[in-house]
Amino acid sequence: MRDPEKTRAEILQAAFQEVYEHGFQSCSVNEIVAKTDLTKGAFFHYFQTKNDLGYALADEILREITLDRYIRPLAAYANPVQGIIHRFKKVIENTSDEHLGLGCPLNNLTQEMSAVDPVFREKLNTVLRLWIDETEKYLRKAQAEGYLKPDVDPRQVAEFVVMIEEGSFAMVKNLRDKKVFWSLYESLKHYLESVSTKPETTHTPTVR
Amino acid sequence: MRDPEKTRAEILQAAFQEVYEHGFQSCSVNEIVAKTDLTKGAFFHYFQTKNDLGYALADEILREITLDRYIRPLAAYANPVQGIIHRFKKVIENTSDEHLGLGCPLNNLTQEMSAVDPVFREKLNTVLRLWIDETEKYLRKAQAEGYLKPDVDPRQVAEFVVMIEEGSFAMVKNLRDKKVFWSLYESLKHYLESVSTKPETTHTPTVR
Repeated sequence: MRDPEKTRAEILQAAFQEVYEHGFQSCSVNEIVAKTDLTKGAFFHYFQTKNDLGYALADEILREITLDRYIRPLAAYANPVQGIIHRFKKVIENTSDEHLGLGCPLNNLTQEMSAVDPVFREKLNTVLRLWIDETEKYLRKAQAEGYLKPDVDPRQVAEFVVMIEEGSFAMVKNLRDKKVFWSLYESLKHYLESVSTKPETTHTPTVR
Repeated sequence: MRDPEKTRAEILQAAFQEVYEHGFQSCSVNEIVAKTDLTKGAFFHYFQTKNDLGYALADEILREITLDRYIRPLAAYANPVQGIIHRFKKVIENTSDEHLGLGCPLNNLTQEMSAVDPVFREKLNTVLRLWIDETEKYLRKAQAEGYLKPDVDPRQVAEFVVMIEEGSFAMVKNLRDKKVFWSLYESLKHYLESVSTKPETTHTPTVR
């Protein structure tokens, strides 16, 4: 017997890859099924419609990718601001040249489906808002611990940081030039340092 | 007799509006023709294919909109950095609530058509590169005149500024929240001030 949880996860992974490479509307259930060892009937046992599959991609896969890429790793940094800078660096390093042209999966699906389907729009926006909210929490922590300047609004910084993380992917997707990615990284770093306290004016950070 | 130049411009304007509201692929030549007082035959006299029309939108309309919105007005400012900040403010002020969900026309068409058609991709990238190049020219001028810090790379700042101008539209398109637009404006302003010389350390700017 198949493990239903595992089968469902397998379908979602196959679908994510197809949708990421070709867009949601231009990929068919047949193509997704062909990437698994399931029958089409079995597929529809897990997802009644193609849209249900798309919603699960947003609710589960895109949510997890966003948290894994940008949020969860921040827990390991004494200074979350340095964590944000370092994570963006890692994301760029992990983006291979052939992936430059694919862009950010959340942004792609949002651009494609938000105007077409209000349920998609709401689900994709929930992921975007979660991304901003969680970034804000870490920035508040950074401020409480003296890394972020006291007169800075953590919500405002969080909105700007997430916009940069998404917007950089979109620009590099268009220009297909990794040098531009590194240039945008340097600017994000410069910006975040401009809202940070100077190392000498704050208390010594905890070394982990 | 119709003025051919004027007729062509009329078609392009009608097409721009249709494509901006509904996307390039989902709008038909019939719908565009219906927005003008032309026949379909007359339309094909000006544009042999729907793609030819799309290319002209990129080469002419999107190029002009970008220059008119972001570049040409900078000539009126003694300090181009203040000009960039002020122009972004104007663009936000001029974006009505019902237009928030439409996003940036250049970014929309790029997201939709770049992966589908390499000619579109090249033409849309030409507009994006022009936008960065022209922003860079004004930033070099600002640096030569002592407004931008001497150790700052104008190309790097230009790439970041244009990414913010496009990325802010994309984020606000998703969230449909003008407060976020103003928050992103404040951050762009903060960033540009952090790469500017302090007013008291530079020579008095020419008042125009």
